Amino acid sequence: MDKQNKILIIGGTACGSKAAARARRLDPLAQITLIEERRQITTASCGLPYYVSGVVKNRSDLITRGNVYFKDVLDVRVITQTRAVGIDRTAHKVTMLNLEDGNHSNLQYDKLVLATGSVPTAPDLDGKKLVGVFTLTSIRDATAILDMVTQNKPRKATVIGAGPIGLEMVEAFASLGMDVTLIEALDCVLSTLIDPEVAALIQKLLRNKGVRLLLRQCVMGLEGAKNGAVQRVVTSEGAVDTDLVLLATGIKPNIDLARDAGIEIGARGGILVDSYLKTNDENTYAGGDCVENVDLITGQRILSPMGSTANKHGRVIGTNVTGGHETFPGVLGTTIVKVFDYNVARVGLTEWQAREAGYEVVSCIVPDYEHARYYPDGKTIVVKLVAESATGKVLGGQVVGKGEVAKRIDVLATALSFGASIADIANLDLAYAPPYNSAMDPLHVAAHVIDNKESGYARSLTPTAVKNKLDNDEDFILMDVRSPDEWKSSRIHTRVTKLIPLMELRSKLSSISREAEIVIYCTTGLRAYQAQRMLESAGFNKVTFMEGSLEAWPHEISTSKTED
Amino acid sequence: MDKQNKILIIGGTACGSKAAARARRLDPLAQITLIEERRQITTASCGLPYYVSGVVKNRSDLITRGNVYFKDVLDVRVITQTRAVGIDRTAHKVTMLNLEDGNHSNLQYDKLVLATGSVPTAPDLDGKKLVGVFTLTSIRDATAILDMVTQNKPRKATVIGAGPIGLEMVEAFASLGMDVTLIEALDCVLSTLIDPEVAALIQKLLRNKGVRLLLRQCVMGLEGAKNGAVQRVVTSEGAVDTDLVLLATGIKPNIDLARDAGIEIGARGGILVDSYLKTNDENTYAGGDCVENVDLITGQRILSPMGSTANKHGRVIGTNVTGGHETFPGVLGTTIVKVFDYNVARVGLTEWQAREAGYEVVSCIVPDYEHARYYPDGKTIVVKLVAESATGKVLGGQVVGKGEVAKRIDVLATALSFGASIADIANLDLAYAPPYNSAMDPLHVAAHVIDNKESGYARSLTPTAVKNKLDNDEDFILMDVRSPDEWKSSRIHTRVTKLIPLMELRSKLSSISREAEIVIYCTTGLRAYQAQRMLESAGFNKVTFMEGSLEAWPHEISTSKTED
Repeated sequence: MDKQNKILIIGGTACGSKAAARARRLDPLAQITLIEERRQITTASCGLPYYVSGVVKNRSDLITRGNVYFKDVLDVRVITQTRAVGIDRTAHKVTMLNLEDGNHSNLQYDKLVLATGSVPTAPDLDGKKLVGVFTLTSIRDATAILDMVTQNKPRKATVIGAGPIGLEMVEAFASLGMDVTLIEALDCVLSTLIDPEVAALIQKLLRNKGVRLLLRQCVMGLEGAKNGAVQRVVTSEGAVDTDLVLLATGIKPNIDLARDAGIEIGARGGILVDSYLKTNDENTYAGGDCVENVDLITGQRILSPMGSTANKHGRVIGTNVTGGHETFPGVLGTTIVKVFDYNVARVGLTEWQAREAGYEVVSCIVPDYEHARYYPDGKTIVVKLVAESATGKVLGGQVVGKGEVAKRIDVLATALSFGASIADIANLDLAYAPPYNSAMDPLHVAAHVIDNKESGYARSLTPTAVKNKLDNDEDFILMDVRSPDEWKSSRIHTRVTKLIPLMELRSKLSSISREAEIVIYCTTGLRAYQAQRMLESAGFNKVTFMEGSLEAWPHEISTSKTED
Repeated sequence: MDKQNKILIIGGTACGSKAAARARRLDPLAQITLIEERRQITTASCGLPYYVSGVVKNRSDLITRGNVYFKDVLDVRVITQTRAVGIDRTAHKVTMLNLEDGNHSNLQYDKLVLATGSVPTAPDLDGKKLVGVFTLTSIRDATAILDMVTQNKPRKATVIGAGPIGLEMVEAFASLGMDVTLIEALDCVLSTLIDPEVAALIQKLLRNKGVRLLLRQCVMGLEGAKNGAVQRVVTSEGAVDTDLVLLATGIKPNIDLARDAGIEIGARGGILVDSYLKTNDENTYAGGDCVENVDLITGQRILSPMGSTANKHGRVIGTNVTGGHETFPGVLGTTIVKVFDYNVARVGLTEWQAREAGYEVVSCIVPDYEHARYYPDGKTIVVKLVAESATGKVLGGQVVGKGEVAKRIDVLATALSFGASIADIANLDLAYAPPYNSAMDPLHVAAHVIDNKESGYARSLTPTAVKNKLDNDEDFILMDVRSPDEWKSSRIHTRVTKLIPLMELRSKLSSISREAEIVIYCTTGLRAYQAQRMLESAGFNKVTFMEGSLEAWPHEISTSKTED
């Protein structure tokens, strides 16, 4: 380019700073300016919960590159503590407000990049301004929480909102020794991300970790002491005493600047961009948390505010504002969150979302070992796969547990990018050696279960369905086909539970009533499915197995400790 | 089916036992018979090195299901210690030899399954029968090694062959306290699986672990003491004193029975099967180590003996011998092996294999953190990606290091299954949270590097090319752009190495000769690439960076300990 390209980027976290760095590497002569409201660019927001918990020791660790690097190495003009307050699209001019001295000034641009991120959607609660009430979107927020923890030594923390940040902060507060209450207005934790039966496993974990979990409770207000410190959270069901409150009810795109300038906003509240991440303005691009993304499964536009996506956006935008033609295809809503010693991950559509979207759905719940059973220290994971019944197309997946979860969700994310079917998953040539996997990966097994269900071989009930039958006091046999030793150490203790070990089942067929409805369980569902096939072969025709069996059973079980 | 289907399966390890179990679940009435030479079916051969090392404590852990389960639960007739010695395809009859009593007998079949596995390709060496010389394909072999270790307390072990089993056994012997020598006839370890520059990193690791590594040495013979115990391995270059020898020179399909019956054998020495895993005989299927597989990248038939593939074969065969029509698409040669604290994995074609197959290739070497840098206990991995230059189609990948490797290779394996391009990899929506990943996965970064190379922005030399320049005493500047502290703790110490920290580079441009050839390195190549772009922008035109930089440098570096 003959003329020096003036690139103005608003927002210096993930997308904005990545766009600046990429633009510099492609166009050495461009004049690149980055405006940021805070003191620092390139802060790693996703690390904030770990800074609060003390897992990340130094505040400076959360600054990826920093202002000086952008100035000295990338020759980017970095203007911090400055807010863009207006865009004149005709004159190609942005008005800025210096937050330190209150002065306004203008900057010209040839290409404008909106990377304004998100803002918390904290509800307008009475008491929101009380001392000890926080949100968590910046290092300043994290430092304020840490200061409060150090000075006041709060004993009780309340987290409002059971999304990923809420759950990460529950763990952070618990690790700091506080009694933690988690309040969620909806039916389950992570309700927009995973299905209730999977969420139930996380809820069981939280309760086991001593977290007080209040589901289906709306927060009505916060009450404080005379000194202005928060003291109580009032909910639709009662009240919770507390010394500290974290509002983690979500975030929304920060789009006021864009909207005021006539940049088109989508139905979900984010800036509308095309596949080049260009807005309706020829010279304005947008990326990161402030835009809507295309859902690669449904083709619909969705909000999917993730640091990973923001970085990818930044690279594409950096290319395109320097004359390139890169596209960004969309997202799968891939999410992973650490909840104590559980790894919780999801991708694509949940079963509920898939049904809402009009799909005829088949799903499965499959617990399995993370690697070869005989290799030591193996931990369990639970896989839920969701597929379209007619085509076998995989629509989504959820994987949770103490074992290796990230690998399986990333494999699913990759498969979903290419429209994989259940048969594709079953035949993936995944890496196998005993320390890493079983000969059959849990995803293979899950694909087989769906195949078996679709072929009519596997006939199953979910744990929820079985629980309902028990709660309704229905007449059926809940057949435990594990070994007597396993039975002794733990079981679903009901009046209809009956032990017939799989190894003895064939020889005991004649002792079982052919009239009775039989639901079989074992540890993971594998032996129960085998038993179902055996019983059906012998002419029993009211037999199902419980999917996921004990490993997916979110309710209490009797253990040898709890019985005589 | 009206008539009882007689299914006869020869071989009861992975493929055979899986086929039997699947067939039973689909056809309750079939008469299923499994013939096995050894005492036990369903032995987990892949666990043998870990049984020898003591990581797996109990021999019984290596029996997945066992004979009784197949008999009592699956109603499969299991005939052990019996070898199939002839197939009469016209009469649908197999002749068996009882290895205990030497008697012959016949069995009829409607469907025959050949799951005869593999046999070691141990060379016909003098001294092969000496005491203390082993192969490792069965629990009996592993027990023999363990007995010898317990009784004779050997101090020196020699492993011949540096494939996956060889490397696993090097670790096993080292963990038992022995001095280990590894002898390999070819240029590098894992030579058919990874490229030499990646192998060099494993070789560095092995030497650091105290393993004596003898590459490019052929074993000429084994010499023993008067008592018949092995004492010395004679190679093309000298001799190695030893108390124990493991021959791990590979395996080949066990196909004599099939070939003698007129079953078609492929050019690579395995049984030829179609996508239904059916042989040239209408009623005979084959799977597992004894067959050839289709390479999903090249479409060529290859040998790829893996327990994971054998299990998948078994399921497909179990379906098809009971009237189903399942297909198996092929393999990618996905392999993973633990070598001490390194995870080593590969998929698809190596760069060398890709060039041999006629592809125009672009590749990269990218070291990166396994997860967010600021999250504690992060370890490094090195990614090598291989792609077709014209189309950007990914052809293969190699990932090694102490960090999380299995996830990345499984993502690549999944992507390769769908013919992914470099652009596809760059935009994969992989799961991100600080404990699991960086916002950009190492695979994203690797895809970007290839994109930058193809676009002409990134211009690089491999570590091998830089080493050659140094060895040839060429005149150039080897520019280290890390910080002075990093420089102090370690560096490539040569007469041409020069420190100019990236943060100071822009201000020092005038002090650098524009005539000189400059090769830049840092820790991973990231800062070096940035420096290359900066120098080029400033008019320098003989600048490259060293790919992978210090993390991919397999040669010695000077550390603060080694210098004054």
